[in-house]
Amino acid sequence: MHRPHLDRVTVPSDMSSLTDPELGRLADEVRAETIAAVSQTGGHLGSSLGVVELTVALHAVFDAPRDKIIWDVGHQCYPHKILTGRRDRMHTLRQEGGISGFTKRSESEYDPFGAAHSSTSISAALGFTVGRDMGQPTGDAVAVIGDGAIGAGMAFEAMNAAGAEGRRMFVILNDNEMSIAPPVGALSKYLSGLYASPLGGLKEMASDIEKSLPGPLRDQARRARQLVTGATGGQGTLFEELGFEYIGPIDGHDMGQLLAVLRTARARATGPVLIHACTVKGKGYAPAEGAADCGHGVAKFDVATGLQSKSRPNAPSYTKVFGQALAKLAQTDPTIVGITAAMPGGTGMDIFGKAHPARMFDVGIAEQHGVTFAAGLAAAGLKPFCAIYSSFLQRGYDQIVHDVALQNLPVRFAIDRAGLVGADGATHAGAFDVGYLSALPNMTVMAASDEAELVHMVATAAAHDSGPIAFRYPRGEGEGVEVPDVGTPLEIGKGRVLQSGEDIAILSFGAHLGEARKAVELIDAQGLTVTLADARFAKPLDHALIRKLAGSHRALITLEQGAVGGFGAMVLQYMAGEGLLDGTLAVRTMTLPDRFIDQAAPDAMYADAGLTATDIAATAAQAAGVKMALTSI
Amino acid sequence: MHRPHLDRVTVPSDMSSLTDPELGRLADEVRAETIAAVSQTGGHLGSSLGVVELTVALHAVFDAPRDKIIWDVGHQCYPHKILTGRRDRMHTLRQEGGISGFTKRSESEYDPFGAAHSSTSISAALGFTVGRDMGQPTGDAVAVIGDGAIGAGMAFEAMNAAGAEGRRMFVILNDNEMSIAPPVGALSKYLSGLYASPLGGLKEMASDIEKSLPGPLRDQARRARQLVTGATGGQGTLFEELGFEYIGPIDGHDMGQLLAVLRTARARATGPVLIHACTVKGKGYAPAEGAADCGHGVAKFDVATGLQSKSRPNAPSYTKVFGQALAKLAQTDPTIVGITAAMPGGTGMDIFGKAHPARMFDVGIAEQHGVTFAAGLAAAGLKPFCAIYSSFLQRGYDQIVHDVALQNLPVRFAIDRAGLVGADGATHAGAFDVGYLSALPNMTVMAASDEAELVHMVATAAAHDSGPIAFRYPRGEGEGVEVPDVGTPLEIGKGRVLQSGEDIAILSFGAHLGEARKAVELIDAQGLTVTLADARFAKPLDHALIRKLAGSHRALITLEQGAVGGFGAMVLQYMAGEGLLDGTLAVRTMTLPDRFIDQAAPDAMYADAGLTATDIAATAAQAAGVKMALTSI
Repeated sequence: MHRPHLDRVTVPSDMSSLTDPELGRLADEVRAETIAAVSQTGGHLGSSLGVVELTVALHAVFDAPRDKIIWDVGHQCYPHKILTGRRDRMHTLRQEGGISGFTKRSESEYDPFGAAHSSTSISAALGFTVGRDMGQPTGDAVAVIGDGAIGAGMAFEAMNAAGAEGRRMFVILNDNEMSIAPPVGALSKYLSGLYASPLGGLKEMASDIEKSLPGPLRDQARRARQLVTGATGGQGTLFEELGFEYIGPIDGHDMGQLLAVLRTARARATGPVLIHACTVKGKGYAPAEGAADCGHGVAKFDVATGLQSKSRPNAPSYTKVFGQALAKLAQTDPTIVGITAAMPGGTGMDIFGKAHPARMFDVGIAEQHGVTFAAGLAAAGLKPFCAIYSSFLQRGYDQIVHDVALQNLPVRFAIDRAGLVGADGATHAGAFDVGYLSALPNMTVMAASDEAELVHMVATAAAHDSGPIAFRYPRGEGEGVEVPDVGTPLEIGKGRVLQSGEDIAILSFGAHLGEARKAVELIDAQGLTVTLADARFAKPLDHALIRKLAGSHRALITLEQGAVGGFGAMVLQYMAGEGLLDGTLAVRTMTLPDRFIDQAAPDAMYADAGLTATDIAATAAQAAGVKMALTSI
Repeated sequence: MHRPHLDRVTVPSDMSSLTDPELGRLADEVRAETIAAVSQTGGHLGSSLGVVELTVALHAVFDAPRDKIIWDVGHQCYPHKILTGRRDRMHTLRQEGGISGFTKRSESEYDPFGAAHSSTSISAALGFTVGRDMGQPTGDAVAVIGDGAIGAGMAFEAMNAAGAEGRRMFVILNDNEMSIAPPVGALSKYLSGLYASPLGGLKEMASDIEKSLPGPLRDQARRARQLVTGATGGQGTLFEELGFEYIGPIDGHDMGQLLAVLRTARARATGPVLIHACTVKGKGYAPAEGAADCGHGVAKFDVATGLQSKSRPNAPSYTKVFGQALAKLAQTDPTIVGITAAMPGGTGMDIFGKAHPARMFDVGIAEQHGVTFAAGLAAAGLKPFCAIYSSFLQRGYDQIVHDVALQNLPVRFAIDRAGLVGADGATHAGAFDVGYLSALPNMTVMAASDEAELVHMVATAAAHDSGPIAFRYPRGEGEGVEVPDVGTPLEIGKGRVLQSGEDIAILSFGAHLGEARKAVELIDAQGLTVTLADARFAKPLDHALIRKLAGSHRALITLEQGAVGGFGAMVLQYMAGEGLLDGTLAVRTMTLPDRFIDQAAPDAMYADAGLTATDIAATAAQAAGVKMALTSI
């Protein structure tokens, strides 16, 4: 597509030849390019459309890559990628072998600090700032962070530290009054209040804006000044109290305001500056602006109509099955409460919350608080289900150890996005939870091998009042099995044997069971017989089952959708302790490999990880001392 | 000791018979009792002395255990323990078999939510509050949190959530302008500013205090009112902006103010209330008030003089060796920077900071920010050493995964307090770091077997620029070996063989090597020969060494000061993958058991854990199929 201004810009330094009005037209073209690109790939459309003008203005005013522009979360980086040498690869966004849907250091020198989880940008920016002050070849650091992300404790810690350090750095608060879900928390209310009565900040700067700018910009500058000096008195903002100069709120889609404020801030700042820019998620594309989620995450779509070509699911998602099962159980158990950290839709908590609105708590991007809040609810006698993605639960790890496990409080952890997750790539992979949870005394750890198992595990967790319990399940569709109306609590620490054989035992933990079944067929075809078992529990382990498998087969293969140190490690350490490894049984633990796996379709990622049915069968055969002629199924 | 008022109070309900002046005298007696108790046991004296009046007032006004008084961190709980049925056990404080130095649910119904790590109390209090509102038999929740702890992101998340929920609950900000180290961060500056000009809040309440109180209290009430209504205008506080009613600052040692404010707040509050009480750490005991650390953590002492009976160390502590080694290295490498999270003294960063003040960053209780800040420093080209206790590093786990390991940034983690730590008990045990770090791609994980090894590992970490690296070491004294002036970088992934034998191989990781040496003597004495190796690395493993040990011994024992899923698991999973377990070699992985270990002397804790030399020798013998007549050495 011919775009006259964008065609002149391969990297940000090319923008120096554009006039300010041309920068405005460049932004329009970047918006069109973003829409066109995402229509082919799917992705985080709404967030990226909300920062088109901001991205153009930042690159026009600052000097990347010497200046470090750090996009918090990073899912709003598509305009940034288009302007930093990656326009020709936008059609590969989030695809196997393509560019990431987030910022990524290894992808471009214009991505100084990658992200995908939220609220890290200010800490990183302070790191670059100290580096600059200590003589490293680094310019200014600019963190761009949303109103949802800035409410996380980590961002507060960073603002607190940056305010105290007093070094020159920039934080752009990209305030669209909406993180992924509708905004929560007192900070969100506070930000809303600022709209009603725009406050001042860096006033002397603002009053001088007219003098410092070229003639044609004066009108816009005057508007900016009115915005930033509208306050009536000495009332500080929360940000000023933390030591930042506060400028705003300004219109984040008004190129004149943006350029004026950024240029002046860059020219004058001596300490930390917070610029509060108000933006509209999905801006400039009616189907996104009109959508309930502002086009946050979209599939491929038709640009003219906005109609997404979502493929019809073959089975309900694990997420939905979880939400429905919990909502159902809560009909008869008034003590069940649900907690999500800004992911009601992503975790299925929206389904629970719709059925039981007073019992669902969205704590915002605040996993630390969320976990300990759940512990408090449990201590008070309620049954909290804390639904957090595996990789995000890492944010609450100390709270799991210190507040939940140590006190043996019955918090139920519903761990969605366990294993590899597809287009979101390595940052969102749920690789480590089995290990980091199974190491904890008092903890029970389950994994669902299909959506019916998940329903039983929800019931198991609800019934388990003697300590904390976690159950993990993957992103995406279930296996298509029949889902029971109500789950039946499982016996704690008991697996199930699905098929009995004599040569090889496969002990699968979680949702890779389908792949294990395929592997069994491959092994069967070679004349070996296989026992296939679903462990259900990584902790406590089913000791009797493991003894039986160890005692009656030539080889035992464990299988899981997770890293080393998880289920297989638990099995091996148990077996070692019991002397079950002293004989000639061959054991193999199949896990994710010791490297991060880039985005692709989940099946392709598991193939990359060496966890296909063929891999399993080959490992089993090798362990059993058999040469097998395996071809990929 | 006869204490006329305290003798009448076994549990808080006994205080109802005391007049307000008698409550003041009760506080004096509690202070004396606290000093007497800690003089016998050692412990957190200064924090406890700072909250004597607050504790008496809280228990006089609120109705524990129905009301939930939650002490943040919990180390200031000695007066609370004295007043809640544990006076007669104070002499067992922090001792083996005695009461904990922190609050602990299993110890008393008056400890509704245990702690030891900081900044969890508000989240827990909100949990109890929701429980009350949902019909659980719970009264009001009161979180008592210090000015250091409230600066942590987690506390901000909780204030944000509590402010938005708007439910009746109480947060007491116990502001002594000093957490463990001198205060840091912008929030600390903000709190200091409040002293200078006391602000208002809950004004209508304050103006009515005189009417609501009995006659004798009116004078004190008037003073309280003047304090809480001193503000001149509509200026909000940070806490009010988060949705709390703010009362304060009040004098946390003035029983009249405390009783008046707490009574009125309890009678009137409809939403979340923050009461800002100013206290003095070490209050009322001159040796503590006069000490640089206000008597934060003391050994046994003489009450009359305050003189502590600290035993003379046999060797410098690992902490000190680390601090000195890093300071020394930094003399010749200007890119080395140090990060601590409010523990400069505890981590030895004070030594580094004294030598290189501009290169030491104390980020406060903010491990999440600290880790990502370190990642930013590394991305900027510096060499950050991030020194955080093993158990506190759990607070930054997601940041280690997402910001450090995924981006393969060379952050150096100096992990103090690895393994069991003695009197601080289970909450401070460094049990899980080897597992949660070794599971991460790109990460290198070392453990020091003595203080000379630690110096080499500091040098190794400084030289390792290709990715993140961690080294762990225990609390307390080193082994007394000679400490090199400058360390020599170790070869990554290479262990060392200390002694060669033929029957049993012991592969030790970290500071349990001394115990392994004793075990070797025990085994030697039985006529078996032992190979003893120091693995040095849990990741990458020394494959050649493991192959050699596996190929030439009847049994292989791994040994570590950590939980399952750590070093032993890494060894087993490697061996399984290579078929090294297919033969008849017996392998045992000796780790901490699957339960939390209560406080005692470290040796006693390791005995409790089954990790004495005798345990090791017995395990080795059993694995080798030998009956040994072992007696404890």
